[in-house]
Amino acid sequence: MPPEPSPFLVALDLLGIFVFAVTGALVAVRKRLDIFGALVLAGVTGLGGGFVRDVLIGATPPAALADWRYLMVPVAGGLVTFLFHPTVGRLERGVNVLDAFGLSLFCVTGALKAVAFGLGPVPAALLGMITGIGGGMLRDVLAGRVPMVFLGHLYATPALAGAAIAVLLDRVGQPQLVVALAGFGVCLVFRLVAMVRDWKAPLPSGPASV
Amino acid sequence: MPPEPSPFLVALDLLGIFVFAVTGALVAVRKRLDIFGALVLAGVTGLGGGFVRDVLIGATPPAALADWRYLMVPVAGGLVTFLFHPTVGRLERGVNVLDAFGLSLFCVTGALKAVAFGLGPVPAALLGMITGIGGGMLRDVLAGRVPMVFLGHLYATPALAGAAIAVLLDRVGQPQLVVALAGFGVCLVFRLVAMVRDWKAPLPSGPASV
Amino acid sequence: MPPEPSPFLVALDLLGIFVFAVTGALVAVRKRLDIFGALVLAGVTGLGGGFVRDVLIGATPPAALADWRYLMVPVAGGLVTFLFHPTVGRLERGVNVLDAFGLSLFCVTGALKAVAFGLGPVPAALLGMITGIGGGMLRDVLAGRVPMVFLGHLYATPALAGAAIAVLLDRVGQPQLVVALAGFGVCLVFRLVAMVRDWKAPLPSGPASV
Repeated sequence: MPPEPSPFLVALDLLGIFVFAVTGALVAVRKRLDIFGALVLAGVTGLGGGFVRDVLIGATPPAALADWRYLMVPVAGGLVTFLFHPTVGRLERGVNVLDAFGLSLFCVTGALKAVAFGLGPVPAALLGMITGIGGGMLRDVLAGRVPMVFLGHLYATPALAGAAIAVLLDRVGQPQLVVALAGFGVCLVFRLVAMVRDWKAPLPSGPASV
Repeated sequence: MPPEPSPFLVALDLLGIFVFAVTGALVAVRKRLDIFGALVLAGVTGLGGGFVRDVLIGATPPAALADWRYLMVPVAGGLVTFLFHPTVGRLERGVNVLDAFGLSLFCVTGALKAVAFGLGPVPAALLGMITGIGGGMLRDVLAGRVPMVFLGHLYATPALAGAAIAVLLDRVGQPQLVVALAGFGVCLVFRLVAMVRDWKAPLPSGPASV
Repeated sequence: MPPEPSPFLVALDLLGIFVFAVTGALVAVRKRLDIFGALVLAGVTGLGGGFVRDVLIGATPPAALADWRYLMVPVAGGLVTFLFHPTVGRLERGVNVLDAFGLSLFCVTGALKAVAFGLGPVPAALLGMITGIGGGMLRDVLAGRVPMVFLGHLYATPALAGAAIAVLLDRVGQPQLVVALAGFGVCLVFRLVAMVRDWKAPLPSGPASV
């Protein structure tokens, strides 16, 4: 079992969850879902990636279910977004930058938790990526749209890169602070540059084959 | 571990599963899915909420997989609905009342199971709600539609209210019968009144923000 | 715990995963998803059924997360399909035959793993079917379409038949080779004949009831 996380890490984690929750509630508002839909999509986006990771590695009940702060933060993010969605929608560029921050955080914490539960480096990196992108994928499926992460934006690749760097540096015995900062930094810079430059993931060649 | 449930409770539980299974198969028939789709949506609607709860609290394999009656009941509900769907469809008002009964039952049993597995009051109430609404959400996702529960009907809120009441009364030491009846009654009355009065959950204000 | 599987069985398993991954990536290419979408749908289709089974029976982390070969095979299948999709698409008849092979394999291995984890015969057969069809169902939901398995093709029924035969023969003490071959053969022949003869599962009678 990993030791009790520091208050600083918990605060970072809650901030990441809050931002993800805002993106979930924005999708709900744009789909004209009701307030409950906004709260559920907020919760699913904020906590879903970690739930999938914890269920797959057998760390049940997920940590977020043992700590009410982890449940209240998405409620707050969802409510704020539902009530003030025209303002939040106008700030979307800023929301996307904060979302990159949440992605970078979760890919590292997810990967390191998988390592702490005994998984090998390849699955641990994969679980880090899943922790980062899983909530948004569940959000999109529940909102009735194809996951944004499949549509050419470079979103999952930065998460996988950050998770892989963290697993690698942890493997060669670097201190946790170096491990975390390197993984976080790689994902964040990669993602922000991809946003600014509008980098795209390769799409299938030629016309559709059917 | 909770003790062996009484035959009366098992019968109630199976009745709730049967009704949920009927709603699942009705969605399948209306989407022109085949008989297998009707059986799967029946099973997913009847058992899915409990499966999600059990996976999240680590109570695997889920109880329904250890008792063949829990698997046969949705098959029966799905088959009956597939074969006699014009009749079942005409009885939909009655089906909806029975569905409110199933919702009220599952939110309470789900919350109390989460408490029995050591979860705190907030997550336990949340898991009670998930037990009640999770099957219908999975049904809608598999049928290719946005979950009904997001579209302004008051459905999740009664489940959360019933679960919260049950957790609260259990917390202050009330006898199990009082706990269960109060939670069940609050959810049932709330849901039925919402149906009759056509209460709606708040929708986002103003025009869509994008 | 089941003993270490033989290299022959592992090779079969990896072949099944590869073929399922190809079908996942083909769906992604046809939906014009990016390369990452192709890899995720490849992974989800190849490994998803087994993940759902392992999570439900409490066998976490799933075997595929403890063995990097199981993670690399879908990546290879997805990449090959993404790069050469016009060719792969033309070979679709062959892909469908191999897919029937994967289905037959997974329904048997899934059912026997459930038996090994102490589940009764009815849930074990059901979990065998889920192992066979679950990956394709997740693929379709993530790609934004109603699961193919609900649309009249006889796909799930052969998987259930094969799983049931395997569980039954195992129950009466037949040797594992007989059990596996009989379940595999029943599913494969049933599925291939259904494909060739274009057998359909029953659709709902009459016009839609709403």
